[in-house]
Amino acid sequence: MRVLGVDPGLTRCGVGVVEQTLGKKPVFVDAGVVRTPSDLDPAKRLLAISEGLAEWLDRFRPDAVAVERVFTQQNLHSVTGTAQAAGVAMVLAAQRGLPVVTHTPTEVKAAITGSGAAGKAQVGGMVMRILQLDAPPTPADAADAVALALCHLWRGGAANRYAAAVAAHARGLKE
Amino acid sequence: MRVLGVDPGLTRCGVGVVEQTLGKKPVFVDAGVVRTPSDLDPAKRLLAISEGLAEWLDRFRPDAVAVERVFTQQNLHSVTGTAQAAGVAMVLAAQRGLPVVTHTPTEVKAAITGSGAAGKAQVGGMVMRILQLDAPPTPADAADAVALALCHLWRGGAANRYAAAVAAHARGLKE
Repeated sequence: MRVLGVDPGLTRCGVGVVEQTLGKKPVFVDAGVVRTPSDLDPAKRLLAISEGLAEWLDRFRPDAVAVERVFTQQNLHSVTGTAQAAGVAMVLAAQRGLPVVTHTPTEVKAAITGSGAAGKAQVGGMVMRILQLDAPPTPADAADAVALALCHLWRGGAANRYAAAVAAHARGLKE
Repeated sequence: MRVLGVDPGLTRCGVGVVEQTLGKKPVFVDAGVVRTPSDLDPAKRLLAISEGLAEWLDRFRPDAVAVERVFTQQNLHSVTGTAQAAGVAMVLAAQRGLPVVTHTPTEVKAAITGSGAAGKAQVGGMVMRILQLDAPPTPADAADAVALALCHLWRGGAANRYAAAVAAHARGLKE
């Protein structure tokens, strides 16, 4: 099960890829950001984000995409651009037939650190420990995207195990 | 000059196409909506909107796309879906090399009716009169998209006339 997390944004769109085999620890695959210059017009920035994310999806071929759910209560100023970038990511995943799940920042923090009020550094530190990295992925948007992918693996854990058991049972019937 | 207006939304995405030849009255080309069922998951709805808008763009081949600017101050509940749909429309236009301009609802109402506080019926009625239609385009989202396209023609009017004059001069130099 490979998950690609997207922390949407117009200036920096974080991307993180994490993989987990049934019963094993999650493994870090790659992380980074798609950047767009602020002097480009918004439609061209969204196009650049679309092209950048498409590269990540086609290179890492995840089984699912997790996108941070945009919160309208905070950052009223930047929420439109963030929501637009999230929409672009969701369309790209749907075009490839991939399931898309959204998680709120609070859900991600709670899943990774045990506290929905954890700070960025705490999330980055836990991501580093969970994935046995020498340092948290940088920049923070990349670490957030990795945390989102981890959160998705865990929250989907029971469902994933059930699906895997059904698949194994079906294989057994065929053999 | 043919403009395609988009009134973004997850449930109903209004589309309106208007055309104007230099020095002539604007002409209605077509209008309608791209609908998506609310029981579909958000990523699949955005994909359906993307595919629907792509059809409009490829069928009517506009010279510019006008998208309603999403307002974060109102409708906090639906603003995320609206912004995502707007982002999808902007990427589609940018992919086709078309200029994208956004106008706020107030700018559109002011351009069409003379008052930024005009109601939907008033905007629909003026669209009908300006384009010499027997009735306002329906549903309201389609009428709003047509109003947006008209607003874009007028606000871009001076710039369009300048560009046309430059092009005519360039043609004159060549002949």
